[in-house]
Amino acid sequence: MFEYKIKKVCKQSGARIGEFTTPHGVIETPVFMPVGTQATVKSLAPSELEDIGAQIILSNTYHLYLRPGNKLVKKAGGLHKFMNWNHPILTDSGGFQVFSLSGFRKITEEGVEFQSHIDGSKHFLSPEIATQIQIDLGADIIMAFDECAPWPAEYDYVKKSMERTLRWAQRCKDTHKDTEKQALFGIIQGGTYDDLRIESIKETIKIDFPGYAIGGLSVGEPKEEMYKSLDVLKPYLPENKPHYLMGVGSPDYIVESVARGIDMFDCVLPTRTARTGTLFTSHGKINILNAKYKEDLSPLDDQCTCYLCKNYSRAYLRHLFKAKEMLGPRLASLHNLQYLIQLTNRIKEAIYEDKMLEFREEFINSSENKPF
Amino acid sequence: MFEYKIKKVCKQSGARIGEFTTPHGVIETPVFMPVGTQATVKSLAPSELEDIGAQIILSNTYHLYLRPGNKLVKKAGGLHKFMNWNHPILTDSGGFQVFSLSGFRKITEEGVEFQSHIDGSKHFLSPEIATQIQIDLGADIIMAFDECAPWPAEYDYVKKSMERTLRWAQRCKDTHKDTEKQALFGIIQGGTYDDLRIESIKETIKIDFPGYAIGGLSVGEPKEEMYKSLDVLKPYLPENKPHYLMGVGSPDYIVESVARGIDMFDCVLPTRTARTGTLFTSHGKINILNAKYKEDLSPLDDQCTCYLCKNYSRAYLRHLFKAKEMLGPRLASLHNLQYLIQLTNRIKEAIYEDKMLEFREEFINSSENKPF
Repeated sequence: MFEYKIKKVCKQSGARIGEFTTPHGVIETPVFMPVGTQATVKSLAPSELEDIGAQIILSNTYHLYLRPGNKLVKKAGGLHKFMNWNHPILTDSGGFQVFSLSGFRKITEEGVEFQSHIDGSKHFLSPEIATQIQIDLGADIIMAFDECAPWPAEYDYVKKSMERTLRWAQRCKDTHKDTEKQALFGIIQGGTYDDLRIESIKETIKIDFPGYAIGGLSVGEPKEEMYKSLDVLKPYLPENKPHYLMGVGSPDYIVESVARGIDMFDCVLPTRTARTGTLFTSHGKINILNAKYKEDLSPLDDQCTCYLCKNYSRAYLRHLFKAKEMLGPRLASLHNLQYLIQLTNRIKEAIYEDKMLEFREEFINSSENKPF
Repeated sequence: MFEYKIKKVCKQSGARIGEFTTPHGVIETPVFMPVGTQATVKSLAPSELEDIGAQIILSNTYHLYLRPGNKLVKKAGGLHKFMNWNHPILTDSGGFQVFSLSGFRKITEEGVEFQSHIDGSKHFLSPEIATQIQIDLGADIIMAFDECAPWPAEYDYVKKSMERTLRWAQRCKDTHKDTEKQALFGIIQGGTYDDLRIESIKETIKIDFPGYAIGGLSVGEPKEEMYKSLDVLKPYLPENKPHYLMGVGSPDYIVESVARGIDMFDCVLPTRTARTGTLFTSHGKINILNAKYKEDLSPLDDQCTCYLCKNYSRAYLRHLFKAKEMLGPRLASLHNLQYLIQLTNRIKEAIYEDKMLEFREEFINSSENKPF
C-alpha cells in the first residue's frame, strides 16, 4: 500500500506522472484535489465530482473536530461513508486552520490552544491529538500537525517554528501506527528562507514519510518568492515519493509548480471564486456578473465538456447569479473544478511528450492565463 | 395536441388517471409540478428532476418578465432551451404574483399597474401583455391573467373581481392564437362563495379552454372551506379536461383534492420547507435540525429511494444544515419533491384499484400525515 510508482518523467523539466496507491484507489499525479472542508465540496454531490474526474478530495481536521465531531464520523464508519465519497480522501491536520481561523491561539511545545471560530469555545490540538482525530476520520492520506508561519516573519521566528514542526512531525509519526490503512505525510516549512527550507526538508526526510508536503507557501509572498523556494527544494525532494504543494490552485501556479517537480495540489480558490461568479475558461478568466454577458447566448467555454458548458448559455448563468439562485454557484463550482482537472490532464500530455517547458511557456503567455 | 385522455376513473371516488399530451411530452395525471419560479427549481439541476420522475415544472411570468426579461428568453430559443428542461413547462400568468409580491398595485379594467419587488420600478400587466409574455417564454401550458382575490374578502368585491377575471380570460383567449403550440388554461375564481364559484366555472367553460385551473384557494382560508369549494365545483368540472388546483402541495391537501377530482398541483412548499430542514417522510414530518438527529445514522426515510436517502444518514444531513452547507438544502429539496411525486404514484395505484377513498382515509389518519 501507498507505493508511489513513477510512470513518466519529462526529459525537459523533470516533471513527473505517477500513481499513488491507497486503500480507496489509485491516484494518478499530477492531481488537483477539490476541497471539501466540512465533509462536502461546497454545493456539489459526490456523483458530480466523479463525473468531472476528481480522484481525491481534501477535508479538514479542524472543522470536522469542531463540527460534527470526529467521534461521530468514526461512529458513522469514517469520513468516506459519512460523506458518501468512496474514493481517496486526504485530511489536513488542522495546523493551518488553527493559525488562520481562530481568534485566539497560544503555541507551546506541547501544542496549540485555540478558540473555535463557531462559538468561541477553547480547544487544544497537539501532534498526538491531531493525528488521533485523523485516525478517527479515516482518510487515506493524513497530514502531520505543523505550524504554518505567517509571511513575512523574522528569520528567528521561522527557524524556531520550523524546528518545532520537525519535533511535532516525529510525535505525529509515533502516534500513527497503522501505516497500511493511512499514509502520514510530513510537511516542510521554513518560510522563504532557503537555508531553513533545506534544513526542514533534510530533517523531515530523516523521519521518513510516504509523501512530503510543502507548507507555508502561497500565503501572501510574491509568486517569484514561491517559485524560488520550490527551485531550492527541488534537488532534495525524494524521487520515489509524491510531492504535495499545499493550498495552491491557480492555473499558473499549478503549471509552474509541476515544472518544478510538484505532484499534488489543493485549494479553495476554484470553488470560492466560482461562488462569486468568477470562472476559469480557455479564453481567460471572466466574471459572469459583467453586463456584457447579459444577452450572451454562447456557452461559458466552448472547449469545456462540463454540465454547465454543454447545456447552458452565459446569459442563463448570469441570470442565476443575478437572481441569487443556488444553481449558479453550483454550476460555476463544477465548471472551475473541471477546468483545473482538465488542466492537469493537459499537463500530463505535455509530460508524456517531454514538452512540459514548452507547455509552460505557451500557457503562461496565453490569453487563457489572465492573473487573478 | 393537448388531448386529455382519461385512462381510469376510480369507482369509489371519481378520482381520475389521465394523460395530457403536450409538444414536450405526455403528462400523466395526477401530477405534482415542482416550482421553478426564476427558470430554476431552487438548488436542483434538470437531470435530478428527471431522476425523481418530475414530468412538468412550473415557472413564473412575473419573475421572468422582470428578470432576465421575456425577450431574452425568447431570443435564447424559449424557456425550455434557456433552462435546459426538455419536458413540459407550465407558466403562471403573473396574476397571483402581482397581488402577492408587489408593494404597490392599481387594478383597472385594462390591467394592473404594479411595482417590481426587485427595484421598485413601475410596470403594467394586462391580459394581452401577460399572454404575450407567455407566448415569448414558450411554455407548453400557459395561464389566463386573473385576479386572485384575498381571503377573507367581501362578497361584492369577490364578485366584481371574478367577473373581471372572466372578461380578462376572454381577452387572453383572443390574444392567444397558436393553440397547437401552447395550451391556454382558464382560471376559476370566486373565493369561498359557492354561487360565485359556480358562476365562475360555468362562464369560464363557455369561453372554452383545454384545461381549467382553480385559483384563489389555499390562500389562508381553513382547509374545510377549501374542501367545501372543491365539492361545490366538482359536478361542474368538465370530465374530458384536466383540473388544476393552483398553489397546493401539502400531502394531505393533495390526497383530499384528488379524491375531489383534481388532476394537477403545484406548490413551493416542498422546496421552501426543505430549505429550512423540514422534510416529509413515510414516518411523518421531521425537522432535521432537531437535536435528536445529531447522532442518528439511519437514512432520512427508509422507504425512499432518492439520492439523499440511499446514500446519507440523518446525522450527515443535519451536519450540512448546521454547517450551512448548500448541499443540505439541495438534498432536502430533492427528497421532498421525490416524496410528493411518489405520493402521486401511490394515489394512482389506489385509483387503479378503485380504492381512493380507502387510501385517503388511511393516509389522513396515519402518522405519516402530521399537519404542517
